[in-house]
Amino acid sequence: MAAYRQQRRCDEEAVFVVEGPKMAAEALASGFVIRTVCATTEWLAANGAGVAAECHEVSLAELERLSNQKAPNQVWMLVERKDLNDLKDPDDLILALDRIQDPGNLGTMMRTADWYGIRHIVCSTDTVSCYNPKVVQASMGAVFRTRVEYVDLPQWLATCGMPVFGASLQGEPLPTIHHPLPALKILLIGNESRGISPVAMAHVTHPVLIPNIGGTAESLNASVAAAILIDRLIG
Amino acid sequence: MAAYRQQRRCDEEAVFVVEGPKMAAEALASGFVIRTVCATTEWLAANGAGVAAECHEVSLAELERLSNQKAPNQVWMLVERKDLNDLKDPDDLILALDRIQDPGNLGTMMRTADWYGIRHIVCSTDTVSCYNPKVVQASMGAVFRTRVEYVDLPQWLATCGMPVFGASLQGEPLPTIHHPLPALKILLIGNESRGISPVAMAHVTHPVLIPNIGGTAESLNASVAAAILIDRLIG
Repeated sequence: MAAYRQQRRCDEEAVFVVEGPKMAAEALASGFVIRTVCATTEWLAANGAGVAAECHEVSLAELERLSNQKAPNQVWMLVERKDLNDLKDPDDLILALDRIQDPGNLGTMMRTADWYGIRHIVCSTDTVSCYNPKVVQASMGAVFRTRVEYVDLPQWLATCGMPVFGASLQGEPLPTIHHPLPALKILLIGNESRGISPVAMAHVTHPVLIPNIGGTAESLNASVAAAILIDRLIG
Repeated sequence: MAAYRQQRRCDEEAVFVVEGPKMAAEALASGFVIRTVCATTEWLAANGAGVAAECHEVSLAELERLSNQKAPNQVWMLVERKDLNDLKDPDDLILALDRIQDPGNLGTMMRTADWYGIRHIVCSTDTVSCYNPKVVQASMGAVFRTRVEYVDLPQWLATCGMPVFGASLQGEPLPTIHHPLPALKILLIGNESRGISPVAMAHVTHPVLIPNIGGTAESLNASVAAAILIDRLIG
């Protein structure tokens, strides 16, 4: 099982790793197919030893060898990936991500999207995989409820026919933004250090600005900026 | 120098570790005293070999032994802690943190506070240290511009004489919150998994709610919730 610490192996078999009792409970409730479970005696006793086709009772030391976590916790699972194309398309906001690199940021943005009812995230092909174990854990279950698509982003933006909001230094300050906003819109978030790429920025129809009130910080964390914009655009 | 990987050693000598050229530039510009620099030939050539009382030229392998980072980057510094009591107290919002455990969350909240001009953060004594290396790095320089105080939080809240905003399931929904808001206020943020403790919650005068529009996510990331609330309360 330790081979699944390699992302390539997970990609080849179209599975992803889920760890810990909280995320495991989300997986069991999700309707996703659980292929393999490696868990402690206690977890198996509490959850039934038949939750997956393949269930292994393992020691904590074995769990540690499998785990990507600092503190492995009771249960490790391999879950089969599933296309969530059947999810109803959002009627308010689609999140578009341009070259997000940090797994924690993508997972946190998926979690925030989940909170605000955003079910569709469109990513540039060079955005980190939503099945990266750190993304899965940071998403806090949103990976089971969000359709994450990887596309040629500038081309997709060019042909989607929707207003595109994106943060820009030349944008309209968020507190004075015009209401009512378009019903269905795209919110475009850029790379952690380089922002939105020029080819994607060309498709932003509604540039907006989160005012730098302090005047000392260089930038906001990408998942924080995404949350503030989502909240202002649909909250 | 590797002894400074231990937080206790840093606490005893009232210093903290700063890494990488971006944060090192912030440190040099901050007016804080740099006690020690360990850096590559290139970094020292570009920044001057006299930037600290003690400057060592080190190899990448030596830098790796010192570093807390996954990818150590050119320069490692020991910076002397400094009381920022002389900072003008904010006239709009003081951030109060109840038992924040995750260093990334505290650092990100400091960075968001910096963006919004919040210069004073008051933490419960069991909140993670603002000098934890992961906090310092995630703060993106805010550690040099923010007064972070550790206090008996419930007692401080009881005697501060200011309105206290805090997230609560029984709170007023954020989008319909009454304006104008009190000029000077406290925003209280609770622990990542347990929220605001009951003893601190007793002092919340303005409970607010970030509506769970999706209805599926259990919670928001603490630093994301803090950012949304800060933006709504002072943005």
